[in-house]
Amino acid sequence: MRVLGIDPGTAKLGYGVIEGKEEFRLVNLGVLSLSCHLPLAQRINLLYLKMLEIGREFYPDEVAIEEPFFSQNARSALTIGRAEAAAILAFSLQHIPVCVYTPTQIKMAVTNYGRSSKEQVQEMVRLLLSLSEAPPSDAADALACAICHWQQKRITTIIHDSRG
Amino acid sequence: MRVLGIDPGTAKLGYGVIEGKEEFRLVNLGVLSLSCHLPLAQRINLLYLKMLEIGREFYPDEVAIEEPFFSQNARSALTIGRAEAAAILAFSLQHIPVCVYTPTQIKMAVTNYGRSSKEQVQEMVRLLLSLSEAPPSDAADALACAICHWQQKRITTIIHDSRG
Repeated sequence: MRVLGIDPGTAKLGYGVIEGKEEFRLVNLGVLSLSCHLPLAQRINLLYLKMLEIGREFYPDEVAIEEPFFSQNARSALTIGRAEAAAILAFSLQHIPVCVYTPTQIKMAVTNYGRSSKEQVQEMVRLLLSLSEAPPSDAADALACAICHWQQKRITTIIHDSRG
Repeated sequence: MRVLGIDPGTAKLGYGVIEGKEEFRLVNLGVLSLSCHLPLAQRINLLYLKMLEIGREFYPDEVAIEEPFFSQNARSALTIGRAEAAAILAFSLQHIPVCVYTPTQIKMAVTNYGRSSKEQVQEMVRLLLSLSEAPPSDAADALACAICHWQQKRITTIIHDSRG
């Protein structure tokens, strides 16, 4: 299974792709810059088209998106909500399943602690994917989200198989 | 020109369609309920498909969307941002121009006062469209947004024509 993780922010969108059946490995990661001076409709279109491009490049089986913190201010939340919806639509309209995880669920999955720091997430992602260097924070969050989803699916598969 | 106005909220989305060249008249209005218990991705998909349906029913030449107030809390802003992006994508991917207006711009356009109340907007929309009753608040806001856009385009046309 190949999972694309997405972390939509106000100025940047991190993404990370992992794949594997019993273990996972890194396929790719990146950070898109969202800040530009185009009108809103064009900006959302551009992000949607970028998501389609990433879809065509990596053919994910499933997509996992990180929910923003609610401690954000309203302006940031609005911007992130728009980016999140554009990313969701780019994949769900192609019938690729999209799941959403809270930051706590993601941190629990990769660090076993729901309130770990950005640096702890980066370091655990580096270890779990056997990377020589920690990925940039936005991409690390996206990879952590992909790992969280991969683990959920893996547990479901194990339970399903054990019930024959 | 036929203009579709949209007012995305947290639980409801108001829409209103007007048309006309030198004067405008009401074509239709409505309010969609957005609150349902589906997972996020399905909810956004559903809204996108509803927007496509409205597009197929009324064939707007242009779409005008009301920006939310920034005094909203972060959770509301996130929800509205998602609805806004889904509505924008439904039309802009079909190359129908989409413009976004602030509440102040819209209130100035219909009541000549940027801080008018919801009731004042409803009453002015009723008068401007010669309706016997004021439309529901969400639909009135959407119609006010459509009227704001129609006026902008009308002014641009008049200036353009006067320059020959």
